[in-house]
Amino acid sequence: MDLEDTLLMMPGPVPVAPRVLRAMSRPMINHRGKEFSAMFDDCTTMLKEIFQTENDLFTISGSGTASMEAALGCTIDKDDKVVTIENGKFGERFKDIAARYGQVVPVECEWGTSVDLDVVEEKLAEGAKAVTMVHNETSAGIRNPALEVGMLAKKYGALFIMDGVTSIGGDDVKVDEWGVDIAVVGSQKCIAAPPGLSMLSVSERAFEAMNKENLPYYLDLKAYQKSAAKSQTPYTPAVPLFFGLQEALKIVMEEGMDARIKRQATGAAAVRAAMDAIGIEMFPQLNATSAYSSTVSAMKSPEGVDSNDIKNGMMDKGIIIAGGQNRLSGKIFRIGSMGNVAPKDLMMTIQHLELVFRNLNVINEMGAGTEAAAKVFDTL
Amino acid sequence: MDLEDTLLMMPGPVPVAPRVLRAMSRPMINHRGKEFSAMFDDCTTMLKEIFQTENDLFTISGSGTASMEAALGCTIDKDDKVVTIENGKFGERFKDIAARYGQVVPVECEWGTSVDLDVVEEKLAEGAKAVTMVHNETSAGIRNPALEVGMLAKKYGALFIMDGVTSIGGDDVKVDEWGVDIAVVGSQKCIAAPPGLSMLSVSERAFEAMNKENLPYYLDLKAYQKSAAKSQTPYTPAVPLFFGLQEALKIVMEEGMDARIKRQATGAAAVRAAMDAIGIEMFPQLNATSAYSSTVSAMKSPEGVDSNDIKNGMMDKGIIIAGGQNRLSGKIFRIGSMGNVAPKDLMMTIQHLELVFRNLNVINEMGAGTEAAAKVFDTL
Repeated sequence: MDLEDTLLMMPGPVPVAPRVLRAMSRPMINHRGKEFSAMFDDCTTMLKEIFQTENDLFTISGSGTASMEAALGCTIDKDDKVVTIENGKFGERFKDIAARYGQVVPVECEWGTSVDLDVVEEKLAEGAKAVTMVHNETSAGIRNPALEVGMLAKKYGALFIMDGVTSIGGDDVKVDEWGVDIAVVGSQKCIAAPPGLSMLSVSERAFEAMNKENLPYYLDLKAYQKSAAKSQTPYTPAVPLFFGLQEALKIVMEEGMDARIKRQATGAAAVRAAMDAIGIEMFPQLNATSAYSSTVSAMKSPEGVDSNDIKNGMMDKGIIIAGGQNRLSGKIFRIGSMGNVAPKDLMMTIQHLELVFRNLNVINEMGAGTEAAAKVFDTL
Repeated sequence: MDLEDTLLMMPGPVPVAPRVLRAMSRPMINHRGKEFSAMFDDCTTMLKEIFQTENDLFTISGSGTASMEAALGCTIDKDDKVVTIENGKFGERFKDIAARYGQVVPVECEWGTSVDLDVVEEKLAEGAKAVTMVHNETSAGIRNPALEVGMLAKKYGALFIMDGVTSIGGDDVKVDEWGVDIAVVGSQKCIAAPPGLSMLSVSERAFEAMNKENLPYYLDLKAYQKSAAKSQTPYTPAVPLFFGLQEALKIVMEEGMDARIKRQATGAAAVRAAMDAIGIEMFPQLNATSAYSSTVSAMKSPEGVDSNDIKNGMMDKGIIIAGGQNRLSGKIFRIGSMGNVAPKDLMMTIQHLELVFRNLNVINEMGAGTEAAAKVFDTL
């Protein structure tokens, strides 16, 4: 099978539009020249619209993890307490990063279950410099209550540091309205740019909290702020990825955020309808303040089936979906509806899932899933 | 002027070969799949040959500065002393990074002058966990004594952390023979890949020295080691830049390191011969253990001429050279011979420099520079 002819239906990296790929093959330019600065400013303007923020916004040459660390590494000193909300792998990552810089106050929920806001409030009431939460927990397909945690953070005077890696650009994220002090996104998810960049918005309050003796160096957000005033990055940027990012952001703007959010949410709804029709259960356990993710759907593997067999069955057909990570390996499978994924891509994915399930003797007949999905797409 | 038709003759980013640019426009792949791992291993094998090392070698999605910080951030704790050798901007950067993690013992030489090894030995004799040096000080066009510092580090039991950002892949760098515990290179310099990646080799001794309580997270070299055992990166890699890196490394292998080193050194020698012929002085002040850089040449601006006028004059002709950085701004200008730069590119650069100098009334007649350079190239 030709690798370049497979369909990436994972929760990132997502397929990148041909015009974005072409943009990356432009000859190099001097990153200290006017042309780079113009591109830098153009990207920042578009990103602020997507983040719905007027805060400072920076692009780091590094993955989403780099920006997660920048957020904590610049604000948290060794005696500072950080409430880390965890209900999946990326919540756990925030906890692990926080542990390198300060004192972790963990709020650990079973992966895939909903966040207990009473416990979060209880911990914040004891005093903390920051609270971290993953808005869209990619590993579990669940959307966590950002508005509510933002309100609690404000009430108790803590910084709200939010991983929006797989929500910003795909879901409705209101950074300023929700009071998110630092919000992080990855390039290779809902924005559908190539992997390798991450972007983060930083509030005035967050900058004021950067009062520790030594900030990290490569991830020094004050250095990013200083350079951004000259429309530059403090260190050599990954120029081709900026070319790609700019083109990907233009596609986002052309579609418009409202349409983009609706399309991605409809994709996830179509997947859920299809799963329901063929008797597959969703993985997340929702409550009043959580929701199924609208950019990645996580499903339980049917009784007696290792989810890696589903993933591998799909791979044989040329469609790349995701299994479970770490403790969820073998137990769940995940399908992305993020980025520029079109209804036809999801229809093909569901069609082949039915085929794989029939081969695994999970279902006898194909068709119910695609029919249910098609009905959802009719609402688009 | 069309930006894509300019010639980059700076000390990085350097022009990237069309086949490297094309490689970056390949569709995305899953970075947890077999194809990425095969590419990862292929790059690592080629890089070890270029570094002349059998140490572990990692590729970080981030600039050379990220790898410089990884080296210090993983090994230096707050009470550890680091001897930082400085005779240019990047030596200063090592000092600045070291100050965020430990106790700096600075060996500060005037930028562009040669390193005083007696002072280095004196400081090392007082006890230090590490010594940092930039092998090829890009900001000053001088090559520093790596073999000698490696011997001193060994004698006094310090780690030798070397910035080879603009020497590895262009100059003869013997990481193992010289006893370099951590050696760093940037993708966009002598290797002629796009900017955005940096690579570093790490000795067993360096790993043993990583005994502090909390390593950085994104730049945690133990995490890189653990993932490399599975031919992966710990966090999402910048996939298109890996596509580009692999293709750029293939070009390096096709040329062969011996030929590559000779070509780049000859390029620098041709620049020096041309400058001598037209009466321009080199910036570095050499001694018995230093040398002119063979990948970037730094020249003093003629009496009464702001070097930015030279740079801007060249830019008007479509040729991008570099001025001086920070305290050297206006005082020096720099021309790269690194990467895949061919004699014809340097001949054109020298020809236009003569034109600019004539326009600035520095010289009356053109031709002496190109003639002198041509003679040097005849030896290739």
